[in-house]
Amino acid sequence: MANDPDQAGYLLAPAPGAARLTRRIAGRDQHGRAVEISVVEERPLTIWLNSREIVTAMTIGDYPEYLALGFLRNQGMLGSADEVTGVDYDAETDSVVVRTASRTDYEDKLARKTRTSGCAVGTVFGDMMEGLEGLKLPEAELRASWLYALAHKINTTPSLYLEAGAIHGTVLCRRDRPLVYMEDVGRHNAVDKVAGWMLSEGVAAADKILYTTGRLTSEMVIKTALMGIPVLASRSGFTAWGVEIARRVGLTLIGRMRGQRFICLAGEERLVRDVALREAGG
Amino acid sequence: MANDPDQAGYLLAPAPGAARLTRRIAGRDQHGRAVEISVVEERPLTIWLNSREIVTAMTIGDYPEYLALGFLRNQGMLGSADEVTGVDYDAETDSVVVRTASRTDYEDKLARKTRTSGCAVGTVFGDMMEGLEGLKLPEAELRASWLYALAHKINTTPSLYLEAGAIHGTVLCRRDRPLVYMEDVGRHNAVDKVAGWMLSEGVAAADKILYTTGRLTSEMVIKTALMGIPVLASRSGFTAWGVEIARRVGLTLIGRMRGQRFICLAGEERLVRDVALREAGG
Repeated sequence: MANDPDQAGYLLAPAPGAARLTRRIAGRDQHGRAVEISVVEERPLTIWLNSREIVTAMTIGDYPEYLALGFLRNQGMLGSADEVTGVDYDAETDSVVVRTASRTDYEDKLARKTRTSGCAVGTVFGDMMEGLEGLKLPEAELRASWLYALAHKINTTPSLYLEAGAIHGTVLCRRDRPLVYMEDVGRHNAVDKVAGWMLSEGVAAADKILYTTGRLTSEMVIKTALMGIPVLASRSGFTAWGVEIARRVGLTLIGRMRGQRFICLAGEERLVRDVALREAGG
Repeated sequence: MANDPDQAGYLLAPAPGAARLTRRIAGRDQHGRAVEISVVEERPLTIWLNSREIVTAMTIGDYPEYLALGFLRNQGMLGSADEVTGVDYDAETDSVVVRTASRTDYEDKLARKTRTSGCAVGTVFGDMMEGLEGLKLPEAELRASWLYALAHKINTTPSLYLEAGAIHGTVLCRRDRPLVYMEDVGRHNAVDKVAGWMLSEGVAAADKILYTTGRLTSEMVIKTALMGIPVLASRSGFTAWGVEIARRVGLTLIGRMRGQRFICLAGEERLVRDVALREAGG
């Protein structure tokens, strides 16, 4: 892979040829002709935190440990003070158990919540917002030339998206270099897998850029901010609350990246326009 | 609206001009020039079933009653035997309470589950699959000419997607006529709002076609099947499990609709190719 210029530099790149991730399925096209196409897999994965079953997520099935770790961290169920003592994936039961040295704050919260309303689903979002209070993302530089280089490299990287479609991608980048490119059928799994990788490897966030193929919704902005990454970029569009939260926490938000066009709706101060564009172009 | 040929025939069409659904936000483009764009709103909506808080969903905020009803029904929390006695939306607390004549089966299930593992999140998917056992969708006809007409009408209907992007749409159709076109920022809210409308209006499902802008994942296929609709079509692609479930319940699954192209991966027997296509085309 290192000989492929498009792949050079990735620490983790998509594996579109991996057997378990896609399946060939036979059908018929508009003419009635038999066709066979590549379709992404989708499997349930049940995530446990110590002795508590948290959620069953639908995922393509690669990197279950990163997904579990990143999901728990991004939902605020696993704090920075919690010492992770084990992450055990069991292929037979499609489950991952994340173990911590001591009972987590979330388990206590859940126990309290269970006594009042019976279920913790509704608390998750509130907890995520809570984690943002007082958060201020670090200063950083973002050059327009990096954005163009990243979009080109990412779009030409062999991926499940190019092979089979129907999938989202999230890429952790530094300057003009994509480092870790995760894909998943589940909406937020790709970013959770990036978060899990960062947590496992102890990777710094302050000099990173997160690129996503998905929309810049509140949840996406909150996750990026909680991960400590100061820049979030996407080819897709924005939601109003996503923009509002990005402005509140000082996150640079770039959307609608198409060719040399893009729009910046938050954190403009980090952006350096170092590419000479034709005025009529864009 | 009835004078607009593209809108003629809709029972409910998108309202892209509605004040509460989009916001103008100022930013800068790639040249550094000030721009102002339309961005979709995103608000929390908390759904209650009788005295139990179920979930907080992120939504654009139109049709909260349909969203709540459809969500509970599509999650299997509200059965066909449950008599709905009220659906009350409170704008101040962003919440909807769905009331039933008697305690629902789901509340009993949740009470049992709470005693064992503390939270019901993990059970939802299992419950949805459970509801599919023995389900067999009705016979129906689907003409290729309807698919082409529907795609054209839907793509040219004024919508939040055309106005602001970053949104998903689901359209309930009959033959070549789109009837109810719902949009939402949340992944499955658009289809839940359609389900809630059908439930409220007592609309038959057997002669309907569901069109979605999103991917044909297992969850989308399961929801369509639970709603009793025999055909699901999309411009997007498939997942392997989505196809597998569609084949099991006898749902016709059409994906990758682009111009006159499409691929049918399940329920081919309903499809009538009534349009003469050039063999080289497609």
